Amino acid sequence: MKIADVALAVDTVWVMLCAILVIFMQAGFALLEAGSTRMKNAGHIAGKQLLSFSIVALFFWAFGYALTFGEGKWIGTTGWFLNIPAEPGALPTEILYLFQLSFAAVSLAIAWGGFAERAKLSVYIVFGALYTVLIYPVVGHWIWGAEGWLHEWGKQDFAGSTVVHLQGGIAALVATVMLKPRLGKFNKDGTPNLIPGHNQVYSVLGVLIIWLGWFGFNPGSTLTAMDGFFGYVALTTNLAAAAGAVAAMVTIRMLTGKAEIPTILNGVLAALVAITAACAFVEPWAAVIIGAVAGSLTVFSALYFEKKGIDDPIYAFSVHGVAGIWGTLSTGFFASPRLVEKVGIGKAGLFYGGGWTQLGVQALGVAVSAIYVAIVSFLILWILDKISGIRVSEEDELLGLDLSEHGSYGYPEQLSVPQPVKAAATQEEAS
Amino acid sequence: MKIADVALAVDTVWVMLCAILVIFMQAGFALLEAGSTRMKNAGHIAGKQLLSFSIVALFFWAFGYALTFGEGKWIGTTGWFLNIPAEPGALPTEILYLFQLSFAAVSLAIAWGGFAERAKLSVYIVFGALYTVLIYPVVGHWIWGAEGWLHEWGKQDFAGSTVVHLQGGIAALVATVMLKPRLGKFNKDGTPNLIPGHNQVYSVLGVLIIWLGWFGFNPGSTLTAMDGFFGYVALTTNLAAAAGAVAAMVTIRMLTGKAEIPTILNGVLAALVAITAACAFVEPWAAVIIGAVAGSLTVFSALYFEKKGIDDPIYAFSVHGVAGIWGTLSTGFFASPRLVEKVGIGKAGLFYGGGWTQLGVQALGVAVSAIYVAIVSFLILWILDKISGIRVSEEDELLGLDLSEHGSYGYPEQLSVPQPVKAAATQEEAS
Amino acid sequence: MKIADVALAVDTVWVMLCAILVIFMQAGFALLEAGSTRMKNAGHIAGKQLLSFSIVALFFWAFGYALTFGEGKWIGTTGWFLNIPAEPGALPTEILYLFQLSFAAVSLAIAWGGFAERAKLSVYIVFGALYTVLIYPVVGHWIWGAEGWLHEWGKQDFAGSTVVHLQGGIAALVATVMLKPRLGKFNKDGTPNLIPGHNQVYSVLGVLIIWLGWFGFNPGSTLTAMDGFFGYVALTTNLAAAAGAVAAMVTIRMLTGKAEIPTILNGVLAALVAITAACAFVEPWAAVIIGAVAGSLTVFSALYFEKKGIDDPIYAFSVHGVAGIWGTLSTGFFASPRLVEKVGIGKAGLFYGGGWTQLGVQALGVAVSAIYVAIVSFLILWILDKISGIRVSEEDELLGLDLSEHGSYGYPEQLSVPQPVKAAATQEEAS
Repeated sequence: MKIADVALAVDTVWVMLCAILVIFMQAGFALLEAGSTRMKNAGHIAGKQLLSFSIVALFFWAFGYALTFGEGKWIGTTGWFLNIPAEPGALPTEILYLFQLSFAAVSLAIAWGGFAERAKLSVYIVFGALYTVLIYPVVGHWIWGAEGWLHEWGKQDFAGSTVVHLQGGIAALVATVMLKPRLGKFNKDGTPNLIPGHNQVYSVLGVLIIWLGWFGFNPGSTLTAMDGFFGYVALTTNLAAAAGAVAAMVTIRMLTGKAEIPTILNGVLAALVAITAACAFVEPWAAVIIGAVAGSLTVFSALYFEKKGIDDPIYAFSVHGVAGIWGTLSTGFFASPRLVEKVGIGKAGLFYGGGWTQLGVQALGVAVSAIYVAIVSFLILWILDKISGIRVSEEDELLGLDLSEHGSYGYPEQLSVPQPVKAAATQEEAS
Repeated sequence: MKIADVALAVDTVWVMLCAILVIFMQAGFALLEAGSTRMKNAGHIAGKQLLSFSIVALFFWAFGYALTFGEGKWIGTTGWFLNIPAEPGALPTEILYLFQLSFAAVSLAIAWGGFAERAKLSVYIVFGALYTVLIYPVVGHWIWGAEGWLHEWGKQDFAGSTVVHLQGGIAALVATVMLKPRLGKFNKDGTPNLIPGHNQVYSVLGVLIIWLGWFGFNPGSTLTAMDGFFGYVALTTNLAAAAGAVAAMVTIRMLTGKAEIPTILNGVLAALVAITAACAFVEPWAAVIIGAVAGSLTVFSALYFEKKGIDDPIYAFSVHGVAGIWGTLSTGFFASPRLVEKVGIGKAGLFYGGGWTQLGVQALGVAVSAIYVAIVSFLILWILDKISGIRVSEEDELLGLDLSEHGSYGYPEQLSVPQPVKAAATQEEAS
Repeated sequence: MKIADVALAVDTVWVMLCAILVIFMQAGFALLEAGSTRMKNAGHIAGKQLLSFSIVALFFWAFGYALTFGEGKWIGTTGWFLNIPAEPGALPTEILYLFQLSFAAVSLAIAWGGFAERAKLSVYIVFGALYTVLIYPVVGHWIWGAEGWLHEWGKQDFAGSTVVHLQGGIAALVATVMLKPRLGKFNKDGTPNLIPGHNQVYSVLGVLIIWLGWFGFNPGSTLTAMDGFFGYVALTTNLAAAAGAVAAMVTIRMLTGKAEIPTILNGVLAALVAITAACAFVEPWAAVIIGAVAGSLTVFSALYFEKKGIDDPIYAFSVHGVAGIWGTLSTGFFASPRLVEKVGIGKAGLFYGGGWTQLGVQALGVAVSAIYVAIVSFLILWILDKISGIRVSEEDELLGLDLSEHGSYGYPEQLSVPQPVKAAATQEEAS
């Protein structure tokens, strides 16, 4: 037995562990989204997560992984169906696939926030497949592909503030604008109504699971356990999240006098999103600042978009989009020379005398990624809307998607099916 | 320090991680079963999972592990209480015990599906103990014991489609037939009524946790991290599950027009069950087929048994029994020569020119396992029924097992104790 | 590449895995506590767990870790903000921090049990910060610090029955006494009323997650994967938990005729608490006894304190305090010479001819730790009470803390805001 083989086995176990943690984030998103929406849609919202992950798993296996990580400057064109010759000493392709699949699935889960409580189930399925092939891999390849052009420009995005979160957040924004607000969200004078989520315990559990998953997300992006650097990444990640929770609580309490639970949850998530690009490039004190700023920023952002008439049910754009932008830009300020040297991508940030270069690269990365995702998301949804419509009927929305798309309420003992519907269903069965 | 010691440490951590993942499936089953049943039984259904795991842990430690993995052709007879001399270079016995315990506990958790909402708590306890000693280890030894006769015949069952799932599924079938349908499940003319589970969010979370656990179940069955083959096993497992979800959705939508959430969940589970035997023997494309067939099959199977007057509340037999059979047989068709050679058990399948041999061995394994479990399960329950009855009284069933077996509802703010019961309880306390 | 580097990487992955598992226990406590309390406080109870973990993470990073593990006889005074020079061959400081943070956070989570359903949110925040700096690190340093005086006396506390659980349990007891019972808990004649938790499924899931986390808690305290000893620790831990479940069930069934779910859950937890000190020092059969005694003891203890007029909503003192004492003392009886030699702390127990010495050291450790925590907890809460009060108003308590502290119910579709409150809120918004 050779030492290198054993070392590779350690790395393989490490990345597998991280893939599992990030895959578990699907459960976190299912709970967070179900808890943040209404009882009549709970089975639908939670259940579609499973379909969504399944579709990403299949399409990312067949095409997405090749498009993202295959050879090519603008897009990968090798390695369909993971047909990639094994390189001695490298992590098994299957492990890399599982790890990267978990990221693509998170990105799509974020996008779903903008679809919540009114998009047709079929739209989830078709958009999910296309997102996995036409959207995510393109930006992914630019930034993480070995020959990607943004990668060659030195774009810093350690674990995907841009690749995973900004993409998902932009897609959510496009979707939520195109789907239009939920019935009853805005009054005729444009003032918003609160549509509270039905179960904060689910939401809290969801966020705790997502937080847990982030110990795979960021530290796992080292792709090796060999020098223990993943521990450092875990530290900055966790500090940022903690600072985000506290900052969001302080902010909302100053604004409303109450420590609103959903806002604190958003603070944690925004901080995690922001530190995702920066976790390997910044010092712990900077991680605290990055997280706190993200946690506070997301509160204002959520209020701002609501005021502007945009109904983003799970605050996907505020949490993943805005914080994704801030996180991506943050390395342009805070990237520490010793860490930049260690990771080997880009340059030190403005505050370390690195000048404006890195900040410019980061801003460019944000801009082109956001534009690309916005255009393609729009086109997909526009075409789907022309073909068959993307929003359920008003009647179905009032009834709830559990009933209209899936045939039964998620809480059948707590919600009763309206009589006319029941009668119709019985007739159908009888016929 | 020797390289072999470090390599062993890697394997030990890997198998421990997998044991933990599979043990976590207990939470998945608790949620899936609680979500799939009614509010009045939710505390009971979830809580008994903890008792069940405790009983298996104790009896598998004292007797079950020795019976399964001890020396002997028909049954193990060495290693009681894990008294097994340590072999240098082998995984610690405690780690192997924890990993195998997690499997035995899953098998029993499956069986519980057939007992749901009407069996006495005492039956769970006694049957659980006896299952761990008289049933599971016997088939386990035949197929996985070093000297087991089916193992020597070349039976392929990498992670337990037969050992874990078919056994649990058959026990569930025997139990559900012997316990008879739940009150109100069938009308006088034999037509079934839907008794919907009370919380689909629990069920979805449960299945996601179970899916997660399967990354320990199948990949962990390599028992080593050394050449990264576990990554391959994780790939086939995950592809099958994804295909199962999609296939079940398509099937049920074609049949009823609705993408029923419980059916999709069953599709995922059935696919995971089916790929469990085959995961290390088949190519990725075959994994997709095996999963899709299982996901679709389980829909028809569930409908068929319901039509036949069998009330299997969690669809344990359809999901674990039928898919367990299909999964076990599937290697007889799809086992790929290169993988069979790698794993070193049995022969290539029919589609690779391996002829009918392997398929015959697989079918034989299914048959003898099913017969053995059916007979012993029947005898245990028959004796228990004679001694003290296995089903709660009609009154208690209507009231709910939370109240009758555990003294309080699981949701005391949402369900109110009927007045006569309350009065009686107060009197009792007063006396 | 050197063998030692690879071995270190294995240990690093192992301890990271364990840190993640123990951090996940936060979700377990959130669920257990939310499930064990009322609907009107559920969002608050679950959500505060996230704030609590955030505060511990920040304060333990800045001060707590240095105080606990820095150099010094009575208290650590080096390593603020983790500024600790890396030692070649040692685990990365960040990993050790994360692992130890997870313990401190569990200790505080236990303390919260005594605060439930009536303490102000601000008290959670301030007490949490001070607990992390003034309480936990002091006893932690005495017992686990390299130069700690109890450590030098040979105090055996492998994973923290005293450091983590007894400290949390004592703080909970002090808090629950100072906060006084919840409204409606006791009648005028001193007889207690049952205030049942609102969701046993949450509680069961919480305990299963906590049990899972314990596979990190105890086995991870080996801090190495090298000789697989962590597998042994996992075995004793799991056996104790299983025995605790069974013992609690038998005990409560003998007392009340019903297998009360919350009692069984407490039995599991008490057994895990008790085995935490002893897991590496005792034989498997002793682990079964230690767990069973703890599981049974906690039933009587919970009844006793309720009879004495103490309202401990989550039974924090019975589960973590009483079982923490029993577990700490248990090595004085059961510590096995071969294991004591292996671990290298203290002496064999009374039953192995070790005499009374070790039992005395254990008892001393319990006494001084309990006294220290009690005094400092009392002082903190007394001062907080003088400054701003520690308990919410009667009106807010009746309304629920979800509404009074966080502005909305955790279950807004199931609980309706009383009209006067709603009117007031609307007025406020309008102004």
